[in-house]
Amino acid sequence: MLIVFEGGEGSGKTTQLGRSHDWLMNQFDGSSFTVVKTREPGGTELGQQIRKLLLHPDLAEPTQDRAELLLFAADRAQHVEGFLRPALRRGALVLCDRFTDSTVAYQGYGRGLDLALIHQLNQIATGGLEPDLTLWLDVDVTTGLSRAQRRGSADRMEQNQVEFHQRVRQGFCELAAAYPQRIRRVDANRSADEVFQDVQQILQEAIAQWCSP
Amino acid sequence: MLIVFEGGEGSGKTTQLGRSHDWLMNQFDGSSFTVVKTREPGGTELGQQIRKLLLHPDLAEPTQDRAELLLFAADRAQHVEGFLRPALRRGALVLCDRFTDSTVAYQGYGRGLDLALIHQLNQIATGGLEPDLTLWLDVDVTTGLSRAQRRGSADRMEQNQVEFHQRVRQGFCELAAAYPQRIRRVDANRSADEVFQDVQQILQEAIAQWCSP
Repeated sequence: MLIVFEGGEGSGKTTQLGRSHDWLMNQFDGSSFTVVKTREPGGTELGQQIRKLLLHPDLAEPTQDRAELLLFAADRAQHVEGFLRPALRRGALVLCDRFTDSTVAYQGYGRGLDLALIHQLNQIATGGLEPDLTLWLDVDVTTGLSRAQRRGSADRMEQNQVEFHQRVRQGFCELAAAYPQRIRRVDANRSADEVFQDVQQILQEAIAQWCSP
Repeated sequence: MLIVFEGGEGSGKTTQLGRSHDWLMNQFDGSSFTVVKTREPGGTELGQQIRKLLLHPDLAEPTQDRAELLLFAADRAQHVEGFLRPALRRGALVLCDRFTDSTVAYQGYGRGLDLALIHQLNQIATGGLEPDLTLWLDVDVTTGLSRAQRRGSADRMEQNQVEFHQRVRQGFCELAAAYPQRIRRVDANRSADEVFQDVQQILQEAIAQWCSP
C-alpha cells in the first residue's frame, strides 16, 4: 500500500507524515507488517544528490524548466524501481512525502509547463505505479508561506512568488476534483493536533478497508 | 551550425574535436565567426554535476536504467536551452562531444532500453534540435577499449563488457545507415594524424557548402 502526503509550502505534510509513521509503527508493533517512510525528491542515495541539484543548486546559471522536470523524473524513476516497488512487493505500508501530483501542481500549474509532457514523464518515471491513497494537506497560501518562512532558509521552490504558490494550490484542487477516489483533502489551516486527528481517521478507514476480505 | 563528434570508447573523438576546434579557430581568426566546443554530458554547470552522477556515482545502490536515461535527458535539456541554442542564435559554429546518437547507441543498443522511449526523451530534451553534421569516429571495439584502458581509470560506461560495446558500435552503424545525409563515418582505427586529415576534409567541405550561396 502506497500512501502519499501532498501539499503546498507550510502545509505541515512532513510533520503529519512523521506522526502518522510513528503512530502506525505503534499500531502494528509486534505484527509482521512494516511501515516505512520516504520522500521525493531524495528517497534514494542518487535521489539525495538530485534533490540537492533541484532545491539548492548553487550554480551561476538558471536551471532550465525542462531540465528541472527531467531531474524530478530521474529521481522518481530511481525511487520507484529501487525503493518503492521492492518495499511494496515485501508487503510494506509506504508513506511517501510528495509524488507525481506535486510535479503536476508545481511544474504544470506553477511553472506553466505542458501538462501532457508532465503526464508523459510521470508515466515514464513510475512505469504506471499509482498511490492507493493521497492525503492532500490544503493550506491557504499566505498561511503556508508564513509558516515556511518561520522555519528558516527557503529553498528554490519556496522562493517563488505568492502567485506561483496560488497556481500550485489550484493544481492540487483540480487534481482532487479529477481523482476523488484516490485524493482526500484535509484542511491544514488548523493546529497540527487537529489536522492529525483527521489524518488518523482517514488512515484508519483506508487500512480497515484494505484489510477487510 | 552544430557539428557533433560521436563514437565508442577509445575512438579518439575528444582528441579529434580538440584538434578541429584549434584548427577552425585559426582558420577563422580575425573574422567575426566564433567556434566553440562543448560536450554531453557536462556542457553546463548543472550538467557537470549530472555528469558526475552518471559516470562516477560513488553510491552503494545501482543506478536504475530509466533514472540514467532521464539524467542524460536532463543534462541535454539544460545544454540545449542554456548553451547550444543561444550559441547557435549568435551564429557560432558549435563542436559538441556526443549528443542524441550516443543515447540511442549506449542506452538503446548497449543496455537494451526501449528505442521508442529513447527517441521520445531525446525529442523532449532537444525540443527538436538536430546536428547539421555528425562525425562518427568508428573504431574496432577491442582497439578502442585497449586505448581507453591505457588512458587510466575507467568510468561507468567503459567498465561495461566487450559485448556491450559491440552492441553500442552496432547502434552507431544502424544510425549511420538511417541518416546518411547527416552522419559521416570516419575510420578511427588509424593514427590520430591520419584520422584528422579525414576530419579536416569533411569539415572543410561541409563549411564550404554552408557558406556557399
